[in-house]
Amino acid sequence: MRLDVLFGAASLAPGDVTGRVVAVIDVLRASTTIATALAHGARSVVPLESSEEVISRSKQFERRDVRLAGERRMLPIPGFDFGNSPREYTPEAVEGKTILLATTNGTPAVVATQGARDVIVASYVNLKASLAFLRAAVRGGADVSILCAGRERHFALEDAACAGRLVRGLMRRRPDVALNDAAQTCVLLDRRYGDRLDLLFADAVHGRALAEAGFAADLDACAAIDAQSVVPVYYDRQITKLGPGWER
Amino acid sequence: MRLDVLFGAASLAPGDVTGRVVAVIDVLRASTTIATALAHGARSVVPLESSEEVISRSKQFERRDVRLAGERRMLPIPGFDFGNSPREYTPEAVEGKTILLATTNGTPAVVATQGARDVIVASYVNLKASLAFLRAAVRGGADVSILCAGRERHFALEDAACAGRLVRGLMRRRPDVALNDAAQTCVLLDRRYGDRLDLLFADAVHGRALAEAGFAADLDACAAIDAQSVVPVYYDRQITKLGPGWER
Repeated sequence: MRLDVLFGAASLAPGDVTGRVVAVIDVLRASTTIATALAHGARSVVPLESSEEVISRSKQFERRDVRLAGERRMLPIPGFDFGNSPREYTPEAVEGKTILLATTNGTPAVVATQGARDVIVASYVNLKASLAFLRAAVRGGADVSILCAGRERHFALEDAACAGRLVRGLMRRRPDVALNDAAQTCVLLDRRYGDRLDLLFADAVHGRALAEAGFAADLDACAAIDAQSVVPVYYDRQITKLGPGWER
Repeated sequence: MRLDVLFGAASLAPGDVTGRVVAVIDVLRASTTIATALAHGARSVVPLESSEEVISRSKQFERRDVRLAGERRMLPIPGFDFGNSPREYTPEAVEGKTILLATTNGTPAVVATQGARDVIVASYVNLKASLAFLRAAVRGGADVSILCAGRERHFALEDAACAGRLVRGLMRRRPDVALNDAAQTCVLLDRRYGDRLDLLFADAVHGRALAEAGFAADLDACAAIDAQSVVPVYYDRQITKLGPGWER
């Protein structure tokens, strides 16, 4: 079994995800937002690459069924229903809705996984659920790639540390797994930070930028380890949650 | 002062190197080969992106003045004078010659630094000399970017660990330096491996691939910390070494 971590969708080479089970991580904040929205009853989240796409896609829906969401440079997009803050995605706000979401890093990374066998969206808030899914995939003989979305083409500490958590979780059951260089590095990061996500977000450039932009409360939301038990699965251009009993 | 590490030329965004002093690292093996060739008396090394470019550029030279060099998938290119093994670049073989060099990762990374103020080529074999150059640049007010060439678009452990050595060296004099997330991660890697390059190359996918392809002796050459005191500088499309007294 192979387990590769990939830093940034820009670094994807042909074959990196083909036929594999892929977990996409954008801790701050798209992965967390997606898990929260689905846990709170959203019908689905449609990951899109731009706010223009959100607007054009929204025309295929009844207005009452759909919510326009996204950020540009961390800030909500004027006229949209939600930004990229997980705290906005309350049960009252999202129940039964389809969320059209465009973010700078996370949603393009999800869309970049074409050719993968299965794609899930992982973050600290749904670590245990994500790990259970990946372990089941490995038992089924799959190779795994973890795609860290990063930030504006650059490596992001928080995504790599979260990937390290998944790598270590998979290694506990399969110590024979072959790790690429990035996966080995992520293990070191998880050993360094572990559950100290306050420390992690204080060191991470993106964490500091969010705090300075007034989103400190979002950092707390993104640090709520295993607050959600959903596995968001990307299939046929939308993300839905696995139903109860998927593990059978 | 800012100090950024960048993983892979593919992840370069506009402005990442503009106006900065840049160190390009491809430990296995282009950076090591370039430092060795210049230390052994080569007139210059011209970094090129493909073997076709090597052949077409060679026509501008007298045959006795030029050497064709490079690798594809680690192996020498048929008809070329040298591969990418630093051990081939002996004083007898390279004295006074211009080396036209095309490698998979290192030479394209050097060429990708357009817009930088100064560009040097760094590796374990010329760590001290590279650090002295970067320290002088920082004293002159420069921001520094370290570009890790990586391997076929992917993160390479050995380049990041070597970058970590330079980051730590710069931090000793300037503890106030602002590090990006990648630079912080490289610091962890250098703390993990330090001078244990045997361990580093055994963990690194590229190190293992070279050993399996019969290049184990190259790994020893690439692990000879500070064996060379040259600073290879890229300027006007060629790499030459700084003359004695550059530090004045």
